[in-house]
Amino acid sequence: MYKIAVCGCGVVGSGVCDALIYQKEKLSRRAAREVGLAYVLDIRDLTGTPYAEYKAESLDSILADPEVEVVVITIGGLDLAADYCFRALKAGRHVVTSNKAVVAAYGPELEKLAFSKDRRFMYEASVGGGIPIIRPLNICLFANDITEIQGILNGTTNYMLTGMYRRHASFDEMLARAQKKGYAEADPSADVDGYDAARKIAILSSIAYGAFVDYRDVPCMGIRNVALVDHELADKAGFTLKLIAGSRFEDGKVYISVEPKLVRKGHLLSDVNSVYNAILTKGNFTGDSLFYGQGAGKEATASAVVGDIVELLGTPRLPSLPEFVDKKAVVAPDDRPTRYYLRFRSFRQLSAGTLIDIFGEDTLCLYSKDERDPWEEINLESTGGVITPAYLPEELPEKIEALAALGAKLKLTLKVLD
Amino acid sequence: MYKIAVCGCGVVGSGVCDALIYQKEKLSRRAAREVGLAYVLDIRDLTGTPYAEYKAESLDSILADPEVEVVVITIGGLDLAADYCFRALKAGRHVVTSNKAVVAAYGPELEKLAFSKDRRFMYEASVGGGIPIIRPLNICLFANDITEIQGILNGTTNYMLTGMYRRHASFDEMLARAQKKGYAEADPSADVDGYDAARKIAILSSIAYGAFVDYRDVPCMGIRNVALVDHELADKAGFTLKLIAGSRFEDGKVYISVEPKLVRKGHLLSDVNSVYNAILTKGNFTGDSLFYGQGAGKEATASAVVGDIVELLGTPRLPSLPEFVDKKAVVAPDDRPTRYYLRFRSFRQLSAGTLIDIFGEDTLCLYSKDERDPWEEINLESTGGVITPAYLPEELPEKIEALAALGAKLKLTLKVLD
Repeated sequence: MYKIAVCGCGVVGSGVCDALIYQKEKLSRRAAREVGLAYVLDIRDLTGTPYAEYKAESLDSILADPEVEVVVITIGGLDLAADYCFRALKAGRHVVTSNKAVVAAYGPELEKLAFSKDRRFMYEASVGGGIPIIRPLNICLFANDITEIQGILNGTTNYMLTGMYRRHASFDEMLARAQKKGYAEADPSADVDGYDAARKIAILSSIAYGAFVDYRDVPCMGIRNVALVDHELADKAGFTLKLIAGSRFEDGKVYISVEPKLVRKGHLLSDVNSVYNAILTKGNFTGDSLFYGQGAGKEATASAVVGDIVELLGTPRLPSLPEFVDKKAVVAPDDRPTRYYLRFRSFRQLSAGTLIDIFGEDTLCLYSKDERDPWEEINLESTGGVITPAYLPEELPEKIEALAALGAKLKLTLKVLD
Repeated sequence: MYKIAVCGCGVVGSGVCDALIYQKEKLSRRAAREVGLAYVLDIRDLTGTPYAEYKAESLDSILADPEVEVVVITIGGLDLAADYCFRALKAGRHVVTSNKAVVAAYGPELEKLAFSKDRRFMYEASVGGGIPIIRPLNICLFANDITEIQGILNGTTNYMLTGMYRRHASFDEMLARAQKKGYAEADPSADVDGYDAARKIAILSSIAYGAFVDYRDVPCMGIRNVALVDHELADKAGFTLKLIAGSRFEDGKVYISVEPKLVRKGHLLSDVNSVYNAILTKGNFTGDSLFYGQGAGKEATASAVVGDIVELLGTPRLPSLPEFVDKKAVVAPDDRPTRYYLRFRSFRQLSAGTLIDIFGEDTLCLYSKDERDPWEEINLESTGGVITPAYLPEELPEKIEALAALGAKLKLTLKVLD
């Protein structure tokens, strides 16, 4: 039998076990030999679960079975999971993982090790949950020079941002809700500060541009400073607020960031709501392509793991190493002109005319209350915003100074994705 | 050298040649050996084109070169293209084609022949142009039981429908425009009557459900009867009009059709405009997944062909035949209750109350002019429409009779995709 072992039987791991048990026949027909789950390794007691009969003692006991061809690593965290990946590959087994931390940190080493052993290291499930994106980038879109990737890659923050907009809820309310639903951890930092999305866009960019992007080089701004009023102001101006993990490849450099942006309604990413993810790629042959689906969750992520196993059945070795293994990307701060959204508070009424004098003719002026007379009670501090014309990043400070000189206090600066 | 031959140097074929020339180095690095275009076969004189140096005399002369590993068939029509596919496979070469007519008609035989020769028959480019969909269905989503596919698979009709809506143009105006732009043929039947989309949904359904769907079994209704007024009425009710190629797999049967449908605004397919295509799949593990991109055109389709070649480099043979090769699908007419859109003409005013009496409480009543008093000039024939509650197909005739009894003449019946 072509045996598969699953290490880590948590949410994703148990989903992989379920899928392997459920589709054993279909997988075996595809492989033209018996393929199935053989071992499940977990620190928890599996007694009484459907996985009890597969219970393994240790990774070593799994690797001692010569019929084990694939080791699935669905352990969370970094160190143990990485250690298991290295050990399984060294023992000449294919490794399939959903652990983006491992891929982002050790991708090139693990690819190299796998290649040297004539085996494969695979990680479709590490980005975009059930959305096929790594295989499409690796194979289907290979003819393209990919020039840009824009993604909504974190389901938790997208759920929270969607909820703030739809329910008129605050950040804190939606965070509590996400935690209650199990979408956010007790320590939500990896999600809400953008680190999860940073690892994912680093992985996709490495594949797409053929040069390794270190996730620690990705400038990262989370959604903690996004307030309900930002959704209201954005909505009035025809935009929605999304946490965008994006990168461009130009002149040999990778311009990359994770940050909340105002996305024009009608843009392909503007309607991606709740826990759904989407990835938009731009290629010189295909133009815009969009991949949309469930970005997390037990079944969807398990589906991606099984997809990797199916590819392994037909393609147990690669003719060459991925290009990013031996090439490090040059990461640079984005220097293109872009439109900005600024939110500020002010005790004085700032007329549209005044704001246009500062920011230029095509400025959109936004007010949180009555648009015609936002500062009717002149002593009451009020919130306002602008969407500026496109500026170079270095042009912004003087505009902000001019705004401050009028007594307005800048509260938030975001970029616009048109 | 790993030589590639391209047969048929028209729009798609020349795009493939361009891509192979442009990405020769990248392809060769991936293959860890030299990979490149070696022959171009076309009835046209290639003198003065970038392909002149690759000019081949005949398919036989190509197949006489033992270094030719892949024959790309980008010839249009059916018989010659199919003949070339069979001959190249018989000669032990991989075949990659963009020709959906060949795949829809001879897919199982060609797959079987390829497998018997330890070679592959590949056709990502035959559906959805540059959109990766066949590989995702075949590999990435394999863990799923796919239960439904809904697609906008024909760029020409989508361009026409989008144009009718946006420009308030008639079918004839948009057809002329599509022909002028090269999107539609002089004889536009394959596109506007839905036959092109029928082949594509038959191909996707065969792969997804593991049983061959004969495209001749696909009930097909084109867009010739869709008038500008249908767009106006649909728009008022919150729907857009799209040519939907869809199928469901339930109880071992494939329910499939190509027909214009009213698609609720907000549905993932409602915003797919102009020449773009999109395919929505439903799986028991991944739920909804959407694949969106350019559904046709030289570069996009060429990208899909090159993607197949890249897969070939890593996977020159499959462990098993696709399931649809030996299994024929049972195709049945769709018998689920569905909402209907009916457009009719009448000399008499039909009040909303009258229409609700016939069609039921949740009927939406639509009028082409002033909604409050559509039949103010009672002798003037007027157009009206309804969107009915969900009915079984067999329940509809008696409703239509009741409408006719009031003197209204039914002009168009469409289904609604909610």
